[in-house]
Amino acid sequence: MADITYRELNPPNRILMGPGPSNIHPRVQMAMLAPIVGHLDPYFITVMEDTVKLLRSIFRTKNDLTFPISGTGSAGMETGFCNFLEPGDVAVIGVNGFFAERMVENALRCGARVVQVPADWGRIIEPEAIEAALKAEKKVKLLALVHAETSTGALQPLEEASRLAKQYEALFLVDAVTSLAGHELAIDDWGIDICYSGTQKCISCPPGLAPITVNERALSTMKARSTKVSSWYLDLSLLSTYWSSVRFYHHTAPISMVYAFYQALALIIEEGLEKRIQRHYRNGSALKAGLEAMGLELHAQEGHRLSTLTTVRIPQGVDDAKIRGGLLNQFNIEIGGGLGPLKGQIWRIGLMGYSSTAENVLLLLSSLEKLLSAEGYKLEPGAGVAAAIKALRDK
Amino acid sequence: MADITYRELNPPNRILMGPGPSNIHPRVQMAMLAPIVGHLDPYFITVMEDTVKLLRSIFRTKNDLTFPISGTGSAGMETGFCNFLEPGDVAVIGVNGFFAERMVENALRCGARVVQVPADWGRIIEPEAIEAALKAEKKVKLLALVHAETSTGALQPLEEASRLAKQYEALFLVDAVTSLAGHELAIDDWGIDICYSGTQKCISCPPGLAPITVNERALSTMKARSTKVSSWYLDLSLLSTYWSSVRFYHHTAPISMVYAFYQALALIIEEGLEKRIQRHYRNGSALKAGLEAMGLELHAQEGHRLSTLTTVRIPQGVDDAKIRGGLLNQFNIEIGGGLGPLKGQIWRIGLMGYSSTAENVLLLLSSLEKLLSAEGYKLEPGAGVAAAIKALRDK
Repeated sequence: MADITYRELNPPNRILMGPGPSNIHPRVQMAMLAPIVGHLDPYFITVMEDTVKLLRSIFRTKNDLTFPISGTGSAGMETGFCNFLEPGDVAVIGVNGFFAERMVENALRCGARVVQVPADWGRIIEPEAIEAALKAEKKVKLLALVHAETSTGALQPLEEASRLAKQYEALFLVDAVTSLAGHELAIDDWGIDICYSGTQKCISCPPGLAPITVNERALSTMKARSTKVSSWYLDLSLLSTYWSSVRFYHHTAPISMVYAFYQALALIIEEGLEKRIQRHYRNGSALKAGLEAMGLELHAQEGHRLSTLTTVRIPQGVDDAKIRGGLLNQFNIEIGGGLGPLKGQIWRIGLMGYSSTAENVLLLLSSLEKLLSAEGYKLEPGAGVAAAIKALRDK
Repeated sequence: MADITYRELNPPNRILMGPGPSNIHPRVQMAMLAPIVGHLDPYFITVMEDTVKLLRSIFRTKNDLTFPISGTGSAGMETGFCNFLEPGDVAVIGVNGFFAERMVENALRCGARVVQVPADWGRIIEPEAIEAALKAEKKVKLLALVHAETSTGALQPLEEASRLAKQYEALFLVDAVTSLAGHELAIDDWGIDICYSGTQKCISCPPGLAPITVNERALSTMKARSTKVSSWYLDLSLLSTYWSSVRFYHHTAPISMVYAFYQALALIIEEGLEKRIQRHYRNGSALKAGLEAMGLELHAQEGHRLSTLTTVRIPQGVDDAKIRGGLLNQFNIEIGGGLGPLKGQIWRIGLMGYSSTAENVLLLLSSLEKLLSAEGYKLEPGAGVAAAIKALRDK
């Protein structure tokens, strides 16, 4: 024991412009300094109640069962699948990226049969393809789509898919990890039955929780299960007794994380959800304008590009790792590389929550210009920044 | 949206002497102010490496696979079961409390057949009973025991049980949620194959992570599975690729929580694990001496009582809720009530990590004396505090 030495925590001050986590507001960080209380303390109960209220307004839902799962976004995904699918059920899943594939894996682990509706990574799933899949099956239990595909930068339209799910009597499950509080999303108006997200993207809270909301339609399907949910930790029938007025002990809630989450939600209310979505749109558009002015090619399907995460193709002859390493080591900027088939093909540049600022757009563009020029990539000096400034002014 | 108001976070300053969470050291709280970096940032990788090193020394193990699960202690329990049990496997589980019963539930959800070895809540599971159960089955896959039963205050001896598990070729799984860093526990020397814990007890970090350690013997059983683990989020074969030198992305680690955990482990090293265990023993013994001097009866089996959590029987005629409410509202002290069959029968008084101090022992005893006297309970004024002070001096 005596031999063990350890270093003081001393992280670099990164500008987080990757696929998440995003930077967090100082008031969110300060919330984690609030004194820990017990998970059944009357004070903590009021924080839970207030958190649920704020979260409902962000999800734009009246759903009673709306709360943060005590795990990261991936735990949210698993919760969304394992509570509703039973062995033998059929799930139709749009598959056009890394997180969509993870959905398939989750559904398979529930013992479901999965019908994949594929599209190229970067393109959306067309409603016609969804309808064909729903039509071809006798009974589909669940239709699942990723709203904002973090691996490709594509924004999936949801309203037509939701209508189809109702028509074919399937539950409609949406992954909103990279869209909640950054893109338009209306759980009740759009008829989404189950939706989960993460805290470390557009909500700008440290990673560790997964907000989820489930409507009555999905809950009655859940209550009609003939088998127990395989996960005890993520069993919504148990979790709902803690995150409801029953307050029956299930597990010890991550107190400090809930404080941070509550504060992050409060900041969204302060800014205004609509204004925040506009801010994401404005900065995302400026980034895209700047990248295109530098002669770079955007990856995701035109008309369906995320504000929160922009994917851009790596120009031929440019070394992926060298540019990303340069951004990190010379400019303290994190961006993301490609996943799966897009590895080495694209960069993923996030502008989420507290990280979505005009300053960050301009800093990224000028840093990238410097590094690309040094690599011999031909561009017009200053064109990227100029185009972004123009775009920011026009909005 | 505009109508939504929210309150500023303003938790009371509780003295946490319940079954967890415990109070946390200011340096652990400050660690959560360290800037967020990406979960694959080179700096974060060094924090992960250092965390694993410190955690191994606290678990007293050389196990390669030793890391914090991104969920609370209950997620640790599920990880311990779902990776090793397959449908049809037999698990022998000692059942003498609330968390032991939860183990049974977890094993059942894996599709295992469970052989329960029961004991009264507050008593330990005797080795003879364990051996009888192991002997009666053709092949037992796993033997599971709770080291420190948070619902009863009993400390389960493990060494003889471990020897039996080896003899009958079963894996030995231990729940160390309320013992790790507060009681003697030696994973390698005692031959424990799988062990999980929580962060919010004797480690005194906010709740949210579940340290786990798994040895080669358990890993080869895992690798020989014929079915996939039902949980994707808690699948150790996937998690190990992130928490090893491979660093393959699985999920976004809860960065701030890992910072806090790392700092909490560092504080244990600073204090010295042995000294910390002695501190828990000294304060736990003083509390017990004080309670007995007040004429109260300890609940757990003599000779097998936890230092970290003391259970005491509520005297006849005394109102459980009134006393606990008085402690909370008049003295800002949280203690726990009984769970399951012990509801209304016992109080659970924790002295864990940063909360395990002589001052807290004396404060609790004097506060409890005041409240019990007001309820008409007869006791010798000052006897509890005097006995505790004597016990503290003698150790």
